[in-house]
Amino acid sequence: MREQMLTATETTIAFCKRAAISHQATNCLAEILFDEALQQAAQLDDYMAKYGKPIGMLHGLPISVKEHIKIKGTTATSGLIAWANNVSNEDALIVKIFREQGAIFYVKTTNPQTLMAIETDSNLFGRTTNPHNKSLTSGGSTGGEGALLAMNGSPLGIGTDIGGSIRVPSAFCGTYGFKPTIGRLPHSGLTGLHDGMQNLVGVVGPLARSIEDLGLFCVAALKHEPWKYEPSLIEMPWRPETRAPQKLKIGVIWSDRVVQPHPPIVRALKQVVSTLTGAGHTVIDWDASLHRELYDVTNKVYFLDGGVEYHEKLDQGKEPAVPIIKWLLDEKATKHYTVEETWKVNGQLDRLRTSYAHQWNTLDIDAILCPANASVASVHDESRYWGYTCVFNALDYPAAVFPVGSVEKTDSWKSFPPISSSPLNPLDMWYRSLYLDIEGPTRYEGAPISLQLVGRRFHDEKMLRVLSYLHERVDKSQ
Amino acid sequence: MREQMLTATETTIAFCKRAAISHQATNCLAEILFDEALQQAAQLDDYMAKYGKPIGMLHGLPISVKEHIKIKGTTATSGLIAWANNVSNEDALIVKIFREQGAIFYVKTTNPQTLMAIETDSNLFGRTTNPHNKSLTSGGSTGGEGALLAMNGSPLGIGTDIGGSIRVPSAFCGTYGFKPTIGRLPHSGLTGLHDGMQNLVGVVGPLARSIEDLGLFCVAALKHEPWKYEPSLIEMPWRPETRAPQKLKIGVIWSDRVVQPHPPIVRALKQVVSTLTGAGHTVIDWDASLHRELYDVTNKVYFLDGGVEYHEKLDQGKEPAVPIIKWLLDEKATKHYTVEETWKVNGQLDRLRTSYAHQWNTLDIDAILCPANASVASVHDESRYWGYTCVFNALDYPAAVFPVGSVEKTDSWKSFPPISSSPLNPLDMWYRSLYLDIEGPTRYEGAPISLQLVGRRFHDEKMLRVLSYLHERVDKSQ
Repeated sequence: MREQMLTATETTIAFCKRAAISHQATNCLAEILFDEALQQAAQLDDYMAKYGKPIGMLHGLPISVKEHIKIKGTTATSGLIAWANNVSNEDALIVKIFREQGAIFYVKTTNPQTLMAIETDSNLFGRTTNPHNKSLTSGGSTGGEGALLAMNGSPLGIGTDIGGSIRVPSAFCGTYGFKPTIGRLPHSGLTGLHDGMQNLVGVVGPLARSIEDLGLFCVAALKHEPWKYEPSLIEMPWRPETRAPQKLKIGVIWSDRVVQPHPPIVRALKQVVSTLTGAGHTVIDWDASLHRELYDVTNKVYFLDGGVEYHEKLDQGKEPAVPIIKWLLDEKATKHYTVEETWKVNGQLDRLRTSYAHQWNTLDIDAILCPANASVASVHDESRYWGYTCVFNALDYPAAVFPVGSVEKTDSWKSFPPISSSPLNPLDMWYRSLYLDIEGPTRYEGAPISLQLVGRRFHDEKMLRVLSYLHERVDKSQ
Repeated sequence: MREQMLTATETTIAFCKRAAISHQATNCLAEILFDEALQQAAQLDDYMAKYGKPIGMLHGLPISVKEHIKIKGTTATSGLIAWANNVSNEDALIVKIFREQGAIFYVKTTNPQTLMAIETDSNLFGRTTNPHNKSLTSGGSTGGEGALLAMNGSPLGIGTDIGGSIRVPSAFCGTYGFKPTIGRLPHSGLTGLHDGMQNLVGVVGPLARSIEDLGLFCVAALKHEPWKYEPSLIEMPWRPETRAPQKLKIGVIWSDRVVQPHPPIVRALKQVVSTLTGAGHTVIDWDASLHRELYDVTNKVYFLDGGVEYHEKLDQGKEPAVPIIKWLLDEKATKHYTVEETWKVNGQLDRLRTSYAHQWNTLDIDAILCPANASVASVHDESRYWGYTCVFNALDYPAAVFPVGSVEKTDSWKSFPPISSSPLNPLDMWYRSLYLDIEGPTRYEGAPISLQLVGRRFHDEKMLRVLSYLHERVDKSQ
């Protein structure tokens, strides 16, 4: 478009068509804004005709937006019937900035009831399915984006992540997803429960079709000093890391000692590790013994009010919890904390962060390589563990997921045995039962495999640079 | 010392002597560490003799430390009898870093019972008085430091501030004090109540005898990338601002519309404003209409548990609250919030921060100039308003106080009338009654006058540079 080989209108029409097809295949759209998008495209084409240059760095680019992120004049429901008619009277800050950069908003994508699931199902929008296999979930909570991106229905999507909500759908659908450090990218103007809860906060981030586009999103987001408008943001410009990494030292997590990853994931890890060591880099086993406690404390923080507000909103909408949310509320939202108890939880989390930083200082690694999830895309209603992603929300470390292949018939426990032959706990046992040697590859047929790369807090740029380097090598090796 | 004109031992002896005199005059010391300090000094002199260079940027410099900041082997009680025998088994991170830079720790200075007062009184240490007038308080909660610095008993002190605890004692004693942006300077390793409370957090910062030393403290504190060890710190190196300001635009707060400042303070403000405009800078009246709500919400945040832990600790030590703390608990710690209510308070604070940022964006000022307090150093037990300082904790704006003269006999309400002739509220009426035209100047005889300069969040360096510029001009003009 910059070189005027494509118009904004042509581009928008193409993505509108493809988004419509994606929606028919996966039920990934929450709201359709094709008319407004085409009007916006026409204006941008006029601008280009008049001035001969783009209006901003996203000129004419259709960008898809997760449903609970406000776009003026659209609804933002967080998948709740109670909020079904909540029309936003302003743009979220990220939408406002991207609009100023010339982005075109043509669809809002589905998220699950209450947002708190790594699947995308709600009474309001129904279930979003995985583009690779309808019996599998697209992941969540940015599940509509994951499906749409994987279907080529969008070049770039805006998601949010407080426990894996960008990374899980990216991993389940085979796209790229990035959760930045808290306070770096604009985050104001979202709907959601637990407004004002600060013990752990979410972030806005990209889902994309390349690692380069993950970085592009961040550069565009910080173009106009958003910290002047959103006081909780940190004034830290984007500092693209251009130097290619020389000798890397990567810590690899084969298992977090809570739930053993399924065989396809262990195979992919082995392949990437072998590529890295083959290229002369150092790979060490990373001790994940803090992960269990990090997972437990993070789950406490999600439901400090014992689920009261969740139940209230469901009641207000006169709707039942969908199965995955019913399970969540029954299992996880069981204790109502006092304010003093929440301070103890904060203290516990702070001590864990300090210990984890100490471990990183001691071994002085460049990044952690680990699974994005214990399984590839789950069968619907079976996504009950998010420990591989949420620990990095708790630590506030930047993390991205990237595809490295897909499930193969030969992916068996025999070839890729768990670290412990007896299950570690009931959840591990249950996850193990989901992938049986013979049925496993069939059950998850077609599912992409993704891995996760994690950097140190505020080292978002470095982590993406290492990921880009790593990804080039892995692509070549396969 | 760098040029070997003074030894660390000579310097330490001098400050030990002067600190002893300061203590006799004001009761400003909580713990005396002269023997350890002299041992440390001897080691540093040996190092200098052997290598001919300083061990670090604070080589041989005696630094005083507020009592609740941990120094290995000393007690850290926060002024509580319950904690009278709590010996620290490690250094606070700031102490550790300064020790590595060659600092010598020779005294710990008093802080009030529970820390939550802008006066320094406790059953454990007694009352710290103002070096300029014994009937006045030295301020708090870093009150021992304020008195010691003003007595020349220390070249540099480590304090903490969550509502004015560095700035008020600096202002009351006539020293320089700086509250940096949250997350910039090391803050781990302190004792205090409400551990883990994150709705509003305090900061570590300097009390000093010059503006230059405020900056020196920050440079030394960030010398060894403390964010690697304290996960809540922001990775933001100190970026000294060297360019002299050209045309400044300063917003001045004559009154925060809650409590009208006393006449000496209004006079000092007028003088500084006149100097600024005389030098060709722009001074505009800054609208402080958000301050009342900011003050109220900040006071909510201080006592979210309704004072429960305060009462528990006092009971545990079998001690009564000292008068200023009794007043505080009776007046301010009256409501026990639920966790959901605390989220609403967070949301309220966030909206106020956004509105304040909007005001700053619109007027595009370089800094705010305002009173440090409604009065100069209070008569003991009369410090009941901290709105001029705590709003900048709530906003998380860097702020420093600096002396600009002292109370004069001619400082009357007639010469410097309040914005409203009738009192704004009962607190304003009470403050007005403390300063009567005839008795006022006598009551506060000898008290220094200080003002406050405030920068935008994360613009700590710029704010100190503007302050330095301003201070040079003001000095010359008087």
